Amino acid sequence: MQAVTIKTLATTLNLSTATVSKALSNSYDISEETKLRVRKLAEELHYVPDLYASSLRKRKSKTIAVVIPEVADSFFSQAINGIESVAREKGYHVLIYLTHESYEREKAILNDFQSGRVDGVLISVTAETTGAEHIRELTDKDIPVVFFDRICDEIDTAKITTNDYEGGYIATKHLFDCGCRNIALLSVSDSLSISNQRMLGYMQALKDCSLIFAEDNIIHCTQNELNNYALLKKIMMRENHPDGIIATVEKLTTTVYLACRELGLQIPAQVKIVSFSNLQSAVLLYPPLTTVTQPAYEMGNAAAALLFKGLGKKKFDYKKESLIIPSLLEIRSSTAG
Amino acid sequence: MQAVTIKTLATTLNLSTATVSKALSNSYDISEETKLRVRKLAEELHYVPDLYASSLRKRKSKTIAVVIPEVADSFFSQAINGIESVAREKGYHVLIYLTHESYEREKAILNDFQSGRVDGVLISVTAETTGAEHIRELTDKDIPVVFFDRICDEIDTAKITTNDYEGGYIATKHLFDCGCRNIALLSVSDSLSISNQRMLGYMQALKDCSLIFAEDNIIHCTQNELNNYALLKKIMMRENHPDGIIATVEKLTTTVYLACRELGLQIPAQVKIVSFSNLQSAVLLYPPLTTVTQPAYEMGNAAAALLFKGLGKKKFDYKKESLIIPSLLEIRSSTAG
Repeated sequence: MQAVTIKTLATTLNLSTATVSKALSNSYDISEETKLRVRKLAEELHYVPDLYASSLRKRKSKTIAVVIPEVADSFFSQAINGIESVAREKGYHVLIYLTHESYEREKAILNDFQSGRVDGVLISVTAETTGAEHIRELTDKDIPVVFFDRICDEIDTAKITTNDYEGGYIATKHLFDCGCRNIALLSVSDSLSISNQRMLGYMQALKDCSLIFAEDNIIHCTQNELNNYALLKKIMMRENHPDGIIATVEKLTTTVYLACRELGLQIPAQVKIVSFSNLQSAVLLYPPLTTVTQPAYEMGNAAAALLFKGLGKKKFDYKKESLIIPSLLEIRSSTAG
Repeated sequence: MQAVTIKTLATTLNLSTATVSKALSNSYDISEETKLRVRKLAEELHYVPDLYASSLRKRKSKTIAVVIPEVADSFFSQAINGIESVAREKGYHVLIYLTHESYEREKAILNDFQSGRVDGVLISVTAETTGAEHIRELTDKDIPVVFFDRICDEIDTAKITTNDYEGGYIATKHLFDCGCRNIALLSVSDSLSISNQRMLGYMQALKDCSLIFAEDNIIHCTQNELNNYALLKKIMMRENHPDGIIATVEKLTTTVYLACRELGLQIPAQVKIVSFSNLQSAVLLYPPLTTVTQPAYEMGNAAAALLFKGLGKKKFDYKKESLIIPSLLEIRSSTAG
């Protein structure tokens, strides 16, 4: 004999499995009449609930997940500290999952959360992520998701970001004020909202400074360091090479510095550099690096606080709870006039 | 009526719960006679197995845990990459847990693993960890634990380490060869095996170079950056301040550089510096930093490979499987003669 499942009951009664499940657990969402019909049939067919699945669903894991591209980046390691300081206070475990910028991995990880392994998710998506279905599948199952830094515009949930547009703008404007007239932007993704915002800020600043936007001053880097190094050397060997560079990702800083050093280009005399970076050693580099410093700790902290605010509440509208925390331009010798 | 549990059966039959459990699951460890006795009583008392607990126990989580002090350290972020490259190949999830150098947190995290949340554990213990009971509780439950880098001597399981003693020795010998005669060692823990090994190497090198060991050249730093900074400034203001410094932890590098800069001490003319560090930007610092570079990626890789080698095997002796991967002295300008 086939086992009687929720599906059997649902099909026989022409109801959804969700309705049957709710009826069996005496949910206030379901009318008394429906509850009676469901219970009667369940009794007739000797329906036995699947204890394992039911326990798993009801069980709170007291755990939240943090899904990020990597940890070898000061922004993320500082954001994690901000997240953990809140989680610790609430008595929650924090699990960190790395996507290594792979969309496939991100999907696999989020898929794993559907089993109820975690109570909520904080995520900064990969540079490859183009869809949002894998995230929607979680929010549809009432597993709350809060974005920080790298968001998906398509998903309507809480988002903690920094002012990336203004970051791109002030970095560009600063280079202009220091004398740069041929400013390049290094980017690692065409799909990431933060990359696009920084680029839009860059373009607006060029316009406001009456500089012409040149397509080939947008330099598309990849996850491959050696390729980036070769690409940068090629660009900096051009006769009219950029006199100002904005690295929109921290790890590109090393590549830019090394390429300039290899070519004998003086920073800041021949090329000035600004980096979106939270590197603590920025001040120790030769020359010390001008940075757009993101409020990494604060963003992690705010994202976690927001997630916990909604956890365990029956009705909590994450959509209404977004926050933008501003970045800071820290001027050092790499852009000296 | 009280529910009939494995414990009820065990008490009635004067057997251990483990024996009853194994008898019910038809284990080859148990005699046929005992199995019959257990089954007979179970039938008589209408024993029903706890599905949830049983599922959880049998269920493979396809997940391994990595327990480390922090991610804001290149050693750990590179080791994680080494671990994940193996796990990905095996189709396993990797969960990263941070202890933030708190022994209490480490205990709470490992306690959580007893529920079967993960199939195995890779751990680098905190600078505070003095006992090993929390680790033994896991290995006693057949949850394999592999140490990497920061080990517990008391626990007899697989350990992937680097040659910390030789690291301390070659760093000291190198400073001596560059002209240093008053060499200080910065340490963050008295209990960590790696700290002790590095210090022993340092002391042996002093001896071999006919330098006298001075107790106050061992500088005990903490997790508090500002305190470390104040302490270092105080020491470097002494008339006979050290002419060579070995930072045994990466993050002390920034503190040393900043303290010297603040005091107007020239590196390497007035003080030479070697750091145990995997910082990619070591070459970009001013001056470029001489490092003892640990094989971080390789250590993570080896630790994960070893863990998987034993996973799922009924008998696998982790004790016999330790490995030491050597570190490398990379000489740069911070120790120029």
